[in-house]
Amino acid sequence: MASSALPLSQAILSLSIPRHGSSSSTNSQFSPSSLSLPTFSGLKSTTSTTFRRRTLPPPAAVRSPEIRASATVETLEKTDNALVEKSVNTIRFLAIDAVEKANSGHPGLPMGCAPIGHILYDEIMRYNPKNPYWFNRDRFVLSAGHGCMLQYALLHLAGYDAVREEDLKSFRQWGSKTPGHPENFETPGVEVTTGPLGQGIANAVGLALSEKHLAARFNKPGAEIVDHYTYCILGDGCQMEGISQEAASLAGHWGLGKLIAFYDDNHISIDGDTEIAFTEDVGARFEALGWHVIWVKNGNTGYDEIRAAIKEAKAVTDKPTMIKVTTTIGFGSPNKANSYSVHGSALGAKEVEATRQNLGWPYEPFHVPEDVKSHWSRHVPEGAALEAGWNTKFAEYEKKYPEEAADLKSIITGELPAGWEKALPTYTPESPADATRNLSQQNLNALAKVLPGFLGGSADLASSNMTLMKMFGDFQKNTPEERNLRFGVREHGMGAISNGIALHSPGLIPYCATFFVFTDYMRAAIRISALSESRVIYVMTHDSIGLGEDGPTHQPIEHLASFRAMPNVLMLRPADGNETAGAYKVAILKSKTPSILALSRQKLPQLAGTSIEGTAKGGYVISDNSSGNKPDVILIGTGSELEIAVKAADELRKEGKAVRVVSLVSWELFDEQSAEYKESVLPAAVTARVSIEAGSTFGWEKIVGSKGKAIGIDRFGASAPAGKIYKEYGITAEAVITAAKQVS
Amino acid sequence: MASSALPLSQAILSLSIPRHGSSSSTNSQFSPSSLSLPTFSGLKSTTSTTFRRRTLPPPAAVRSPEIRASATVETLEKTDNALVEKSVNTIRFLAIDAVEKANSGHPGLPMGCAPIGHILYDEIMRYNPKNPYWFNRDRFVLSAGHGCMLQYALLHLAGYDAVREEDLKSFRQWGSKTPGHPENFETPGVEVTTGPLGQGIANAVGLALSEKHLAARFNKPGAEIVDHYTYCILGDGCQMEGISQEAASLAGHWGLGKLIAFYDDNHISIDGDTEIAFTEDVGARFEALGWHVIWVKNGNTGYDEIRAAIKEAKAVTDKPTMIKVTTTIGFGSPNKANSYSVHGSALGAKEVEATRQNLGWPYEPFHVPEDVKSHWSRHVPEGAALEAGWNTKFAEYEKKYPEEAADLKSIITGELPAGWEKALPTYTPESPADATRNLSQQNLNALAKVLPGFLGGSADLASSNMTLMKMFGDFQKNTPEERNLRFGVREHGMGAISNGIALHSPGLIPYCATFFVFTDYMRAAIRISALSESRVIYVMTHDSIGLGEDGPTHQPIEHLASFRAMPNVLMLRPADGNETAGAYKVAILKSKTPSILALSRQKLPQLAGTSIEGTAKGGYVISDNSSGNKPDVILIGTGSELEIAVKAADELRKEGKAVRVVSLVSWELFDEQSAEYKESVLPAAVTARVSIEAGSTFGWEKIVGSKGKAIGIDRFGASAPAGKIYKEYGITAEAVITAAKQVS
Repeated sequence: MASSALPLSQAILSLSIPRHGSSSSTNSQFSPSSLSLPTFSGLKSTTSTTFRRRTLPPPAAVRSPEIRASATVETLEKTDNALVEKSVNTIRFLAIDAVEKANSGHPGLPMGCAPIGHILYDEIMRYNPKNPYWFNRDRFVLSAGHGCMLQYALLHLAGYDAVREEDLKSFRQWGSKTPGHPENFETPGVEVTTGPLGQGIANAVGLALSEKHLAARFNKPGAEIVDHYTYCILGDGCQMEGISQEAASLAGHWGLGKLIAFYDDNHISIDGDTEIAFTEDVGARFEALGWHVIWVKNGNTGYDEIRAAIKEAKAVTDKPTMIKVTTTIGFGSPNKANSYSVHGSALGAKEVEATRQNLGWPYEPFHVPEDVKSHWSRHVPEGAALEAGWNTKFAEYEKKYPEEAADLKSIITGELPAGWEKALPTYTPESPADATRNLSQQNLNALAKVLPGFLGGSADLASSNMTLMKMFGDFQKNTPEERNLRFGVREHGMGAISNGIALHSPGLIPYCATFFVFTDYMRAAIRISALSESRVIYVMTHDSIGLGEDGPTHQPIEHLASFRAMPNVLMLRPADGNETAGAYKVAILKSKTPSILALSRQKLPQLAGTSIEGTAKGGYVISDNSSGNKPDVILIGTGSELEIAVKAADELRKEGKAVRVVSLVSWELFDEQSAEYKESVLPAAVTARVSIEAGSTFGWEKIVGSKGKAIGIDRFGASAPAGKIYKEYGITAEAVITAAKQVS
Repeated sequence: MASSALPLSQAILSLSIPRHGSSSSTNSQFSPSSLSLPTFSGLKSTTSTTFRRRTLPPPAAVRSPEIRASATVETLEKTDNALVEKSVNTIRFLAIDAVEKANSGHPGLPMGCAPIGHILYDEIMRYNPKNPYWFNRDRFVLSAGHGCMLQYALLHLAGYDAVREEDLKSFRQWGSKTPGHPENFETPGVEVTTGPLGQGIANAVGLALSEKHLAARFNKPGAEIVDHYTYCILGDGCQMEGISQEAASLAGHWGLGKLIAFYDDNHISIDGDTEIAFTEDVGARFEALGWHVIWVKNGNTGYDEIRAAIKEAKAVTDKPTMIKVTTTIGFGSPNKANSYSVHGSALGAKEVEATRQNLGWPYEPFHVPEDVKSHWSRHVPEGAALEAGWNTKFAEYEKKYPEEAADLKSIITGELPAGWEKALPTYTPESPADATRNLSQQNLNALAKVLPGFLGGSADLASSNMTLMKMFGDFQKNTPEERNLRFGVREHGMGAISNGIALHSPGLIPYCATFFVFTDYMRAAIRISALSESRVIYVMTHDSIGLGEDGPTHQPIEHLASFRAMPNVLMLRPADGNETAGAYKVAILKSKTPSILALSRQKLPQLAGTSIEGTAKGGYVISDNSSGNKPDVILIGTGSELEIAVKAADELRKEGKAVRVVSLVSWELFDEQSAEYKESVLPAAVTARVSIEAGSTFGWEKIVGSKGKAIGIDRFGASAPAGKIYKEYGITAEAVITAAKQVS
């Protein structure tokens, strides 16, 4: 369905650069000049460069546990084994120097994990430094995101343009490509945004899920067009977070064999030795979760152990692998290694000097020795060859399997199939009344047919959230080609896994679902969707006291306000079928913004005047009997309360009032409209305004002004049938009528 | 320190009843008439009634796995074993009937867990039905809160006044004591508020921690004045949630030997068989967490197995125990048992009838057979005797250990030691500038000396949040008498554990800490603090872009707004030392409201005009050169930006303007003030208002009005030194001056 002239480079680039300021545009424009791309021939290429990985000779003699070795100097006479050590120390000192210059940051993890980092980026991973978005690259996630200087050093050595020497020197400074935690939207080469602990490993699960799914759908005998690994480094902090347990449990359940996680077991967290709060047997826990577990006891210098562990991990194809690597935080620092003081502060000039002495490092800050530089320089041509080889393979694939290739292209580029939006259902006032959660399901099922990259599911509430795609089965260990995801009761993991899916490929569009109130369980992941520009669609049903008997623990009150206040999130609360379709349309088009759809449990009528187009503007007039843009009063509603506003308007009009009814389905979208348009909907001169929404009135003063009135709920809900609660809480047409008379 | 005439009954009652509407009062007044209390003699009593538990004879012959047994009828000729079965079926049918009448609810769990429930409430637990708040009672938490009819049925049989027959008949109805999920503030006898999955087991960890701590602090040889168990039932849903993993990991670490959790292993969740999303080995995971694990294979009728498991669990005193009980959800329903359809819907009249036939239950709905009633009736006198016995014991304890008894009384009653607030530090403009996180630590340490029930800690950020109490060591497995809690990186578990501590005893005042942005990880627990009226103090540092280099993943933007919108939460953002002290004072006094203190990482000056008293009003004038309540412009700031407002005011006054500066440290407290007072601070006639706060402007229209201007941040933060970000984002005195000139 995707167009055949595939602008792959454009699609690739569209993933990058624009900050949140640009979130208002539904199409992401890019500036090719902002990235220096390799000259590659695109998918149609027939480049036949074959790729042969140059690996270092087996470094049997590398073990040098005596870290206080005599100073080494830059020379070409080294063995390759010594070169590994030198590369590892280069990584350590780039981290030390950058943190020192910034006087801020976390040197401990990069110093301890440099061996893992070196082996991954220099010996194991397949990537193209000059095209960080090459589709079939191996993915790397630094879940312990505070150690980002590890990744920046590796990207720098590997030849990524985003991290040049001057970028390392501006670590943690205004406008740099090297912020304090890894941010995919700032630094091409960084896959996801980490730092808040536990998010990264869950993102990695989403990336690995995506690979497993796409491989199962698109690979053909002899044409393994989707084939990459996902690597992750996580620390003690990530392990303690519940989100990592949720994601790891699912990874084990799904049998994500190409997910390889390194647990940086350094026994130190900010408060000191992990003995004070973390004494569980992590390895045994992961075995219980269905993971393959390997322990590398010497992560500081045991390069061969690390290599062997990765080999073993790759051989286990039906389970994810956790490699517990025991390291020394701040390895090499004679006075600070193995203590919390090296975790999150610069070493200080004196200790930097002592570390240079200790590790035999005679160079100036930020210096990369020539032999190290030369050694790493092969990754640029090798990466280009890897991509070219894949392009050739894809060209052959496309010839044999044009339909599959078209779908996969759409997923790779994010280019939506032409006319996809025609699939969205439309409604008339005569269409049957229905809950917006059910109308949502009609939309989900319509979209599933036309969007190749659409997949998702619920946190054990599929039959309540109405999120099953009826034409597909469940994505499971042995049916990974299917698209219904079963997250179990794991909201936080679900959100972060969805972020990983969204950031795997521009055309993967994940949705995920639970009750709206349980966004509280996954708020940290939703915020990272917003920050990292992940188009995740949050299908949040049971969006008010209208859910009734389950009571206040299940009834959202402050949630609409809380997301309206969050940057780069589209909060949508559709009132009926047309608005639900409109909400989905916008959610799909906003390729760099997550959307939250608040949907009703209860049945709602199809209203006259609602439309997909109106919804896209965020706020619009659905009925009006005034003229000259001068109604006596404006009634404003959202979602299930728009019906109440309509009823109140009917009554007021019977009494001779000129009444306008406005649906304010999305404040963010309305904010994006021109001043003229906004004036045409909410004229400044008309201060007689009444809003009604079954949620907190917090923030509504902006809409109704100091002379208007906001009807809402500023206390917790109650357990009772929904109609009773609406009445007792005064969320009624009568209340709107009374207020309208007071303000007009 | 506590006064010696202890109003225990008042303290006990003060835990109950008032809804959130009353949260404005700092002292909780109670209405004794709303609870029928037993006549008990109070702590000074010398009642010597000895208590002897009547236990049923060992029901060796109880096993009747054939559930389709022939109908039994009400008769006195039964064996006691048959009586157990009859009691269990009474519980099942009370649940079935209540859900059926409400046509809403969850019958499946009560039907499956009735045997556990019966054994706990009838044979194992020590409690006093006529005083649900007796201090030394065993605690029970239904973490799988949707199964609340199990608990309501048990409370009804045991003789709790809150759950009479008419309450069962008004299950899930407006104003009833039997809401759709267990709510401690509605139903005396319910310890905590559950429903959102995983919260309850974490609350139970907090309850068990409290017992272990208080026992270690107060028990003396021969005077085990604190000695109770905490029981919990959790289901598959709870097990999947990350919060339960966090809490369970800590429970294992702390060795909470008197925590006994029943895992209702019924293999069914809402989406169907747990096979689709939950295949980990839960038992092995808990063993890895340091728990003792027991498997009861026949939870449906294996009463002896359940009894033996509890006995074994009690014998293991250095580890918490998880008893995995394999049950059949909806046990007894011939056509719906063991399926998701019995999880969350009424059985329907036909299936209710079939279940009656199947279990041989000839009674009318809600009927409790006379022999069952008679059997359970002993719990009222036995409970009274238990409490009386404990009172005697306490009276003896008090004679021997008057100081300890005074502290424990304060914890039991919630009565604060006289003059405690004098311990709070005060500051003058000459006091050194400091970060409010450091000023917070001064307050914490001052309060720790005077409040016997004050304890808390951080989620692995003690040295950043500044939360250590210097006079105490760490609460650990072998030092449980200490008061610094080490939560590890487990924010969500921390919040819910703190809820458990707060609800264990009215005078336990837990605080917990992390970076403000990570309230996103624990928001569900904070919301339950608010709903369940738990006085938890959330010490949230690094409260804005002012944290600098860590960047947008760590910089709160929307968080202040998001909590201002949440009911029954006090959001406080103090600007300096006096306001920090004021914030703590209010947080302690608001005994039914959690407080969140947003505190700065960066140094702030001690401002002229700030005060503890002003802070308690939420908003107040800190400086003003106008007269007649008619300033030219009002500048409003909070926290670290109040200093900026002051600077801008100084400049504007130099130019001849009459400028008022208002600190709006807590919107909720300001809202509670009289209209007169509010007018004296923000006169309606003065529309020239400028606010400044380094966070979302969402909601500020309420304060500045449509003619004012709100200076804030409506996008994500950035990684750079703090001063640079403030400047680039326009959070400056210059911006305030410009805005002030525009609006005035």
